[in-house]
Amino acid sequence: MALWAIVLAGGAGTRFWPASTPEQPKQLLPLVDPSETLLEATLRRIAPLVPASNVYVSTGAHLALPTRKILGSSAVKLLAEPVPRNTAPCIAWATATILAADPQALCIVLPSDHAITKPDAFLARVGDALDAARLGYLTTIGIEPTRAETGYGYIERGDPIRDGIFVAKRFVEKPDRARADEYVASGRFLWNAGMFFYAASTMMDAVREHAPDIAALLAGGNVEATFASMPSISIDHAIMEKARKVAVVPGDFGWSDLGSWQSAWELSAKDPDGNVLPAGSVAIDAHGNLVWDARAGRKARTYAVLGVSDLVIVETEDAVLVVPRDRAQDVRLLVERLKR
Amino acid sequence: MALWAIVLAGGAGTRFWPASTPEQPKQLLPLVDPSETLLEATLRRIAPLVPASNVYVSTGAHLALPTRKILGSSAVKLLAEPVPRNTAPCIAWATATILAADPQALCIVLPSDHAITKPDAFLARVGDALDAARLGYLTTIGIEPTRAETGYGYIERGDPIRDGIFVAKRFVEKPDRARADEYVASGRFLWNAGMFFYAASTMMDAVREHAPDIAALLAGGNVEATFASMPSISIDHAIMEKARKVAVVPGDFGWSDLGSWQSAWELSAKDPDGNVLPAGSVAIDAHGNLVWDARAGRKARTYAVLGVSDLVIVETEDAVLVVPRDRAQDVRLLVERLKR
Repeated sequence: MALWAIVLAGGAGTRFWPASTPEQPKQLLPLVDPSETLLEATLRRIAPLVPASNVYVSTGAHLALPTRKILGSSAVKLLAEPVPRNTAPCIAWATATILAADPQALCIVLPSDHAITKPDAFLARVGDALDAARLGYLTTIGIEPTRAETGYGYIERGDPIRDGIFVAKRFVEKPDRARADEYVASGRFLWNAGMFFYAASTMMDAVREHAPDIAALLAGGNVEATFASMPSISIDHAIMEKARKVAVVPGDFGWSDLGSWQSAWELSAKDPDGNVLPAGSVAIDAHGNLVWDARAGRKARTYAVLGVSDLVIVETEDAVLVVPRDRAQDVRLLVERLKR
Repeated sequence: MALWAIVLAGGAGTRFWPASTPEQPKQLLPLVDPSETLLEATLRRIAPLVPASNVYVSTGAHLALPTRKILGSSAVKLLAEPVPRNTAPCIAWATATILAADPQALCIVLPSDHAITKPDAFLARVGDALDAARLGYLTTIGIEPTRAETGYGYIERGDPIRDGIFVAKRFVEKPDRARADEYVASGRFLWNAGMFFYAASTMMDAVREHAPDIAALLAGGNVEATFASMPSISIDHAIMEKARKVAVVPGDFGWSDLGSWQSAWELSAKDPDGNVLPAGSVAIDAHGNLVWDARAGRKARTYAVLGVSDLVIVETEDAVLVVPRDRAQDVRLLVERLKR
């Protein structure tokens, strides 16, 4: 059973404003390592398992050009959704495409805008997840929670199927604070990181059973023309919550969904004072700052920080952001204000 | 006795880095009012008294072009020093030039990089100072001190000559803290703001008596060729401290030497949250910040500050500075570091 990958690169977040914009969303930014975008890092991470020609990058039509530019001469294929319809139609379309080429295909679905600091540990868990997929399970990797996060969905794990693989008992939405505390205290709940592993045939069977409208549109051929008729629904809601054989593999490999500039700072290489600064910067009595130069071309420039700590400073051609790291979440407030 | 003015515009400070550079020093920046440079504000301030054709702007040769550009089609004349030699040679040269044109000239010497918030009160004091000049005094305006500043020279005032005009008993250098406290407590000391008022003939007599080397070089003609031979000395040291008939007029007209970005913030118009921001900026939970866009051309750009207070943020093409207002003095540390 050959391995294939579907990399979801259609996101259009605003949390990394002003660096991220609808035209250049998070996955196209080198947020953790200045030398590669998050999309490139995702592709590099699975390169040991999946040949580039077996990788589909799924993105929106308006992002096809910048995404292709980043992929360069790679054999990776692009699947451009004419309109955004959440993850179920897009994953089903990519899976159907792969299944047509390889009836034995085993698929890996990964978001393109997360970070993983321990790629070897990640690949080991992917190995477990693929084992479960070979056993006929729609499988996900759940992240061992490190805090009672209310911003993520959770997966409750049930009985073990095998060492390191569990029945996924249920998928739950973002909880409130009290419930998140319960989840973490129970030891049975994992974060849903949006990674899926399955035999293409198993998934398409599930799509036919649980999302017949999607299956029908795919069966009609000419998917690009009819894509707008797809329901906008997540793979979790459409399939994972309904399917019978669903497995979860708990994982702990330095995962981050890079939810804000704070996470980018956490994951970036820092100088001895905890600063992340462009080359040629000067810092005096300054600690824990993230200075991010996202100007087109990035002409050499001196960033000088003196006597300031724990700030995020982001520069683009069109905007400058200055915010304390611990308020990085509130960047959305600025984006909302600017929209008005 | 016609009025003439000598505006000293040769300064090359680093306190407003990165906006101020050797090629664009403080007086060429619109630091207080976005619509005019400090030099322009200085010229506007004396315009009610002195016709433009009676004004000499004294600057360094390397600043002649940008200074001329700011003066535009004004009848103001430029006197470019081939090399910097402090204030005595430059004031003596300008005064000799004026005296040759008008033996009855009464001169006003003003720095070009200070701010005055009460121009009417200033002009009233200038009137007093010119009265003293007509009486044959080398006259200065001394600023009523509002704090025990150790960064300025002081002038001790002696007996009154007339209402509002006093004998200048002595000029003293920048004092230490204890002495500055004494000076301010005494009520007799004023800040030396580098403004001088005199009959051109009186000043040239004093130059011949107290600075014969300068007088000799001026008498030799071809001043531009011999200017490098001038001693580098201030008018205070060369003349004012030695001359016999020296007067001081105490003044209180919202004077500031604009010593740092902190002063620029203090004097600028602020929004209700105390921010000074470029047009089109967004501030949320942000107070007392100064954001200064000194990029060439200043293409429209959004400056967004969220949750930060009392910061100075300065942007040029080549550098960005972020420093708390209360550490704005330490910008020199950055400039020194960058020189190394």
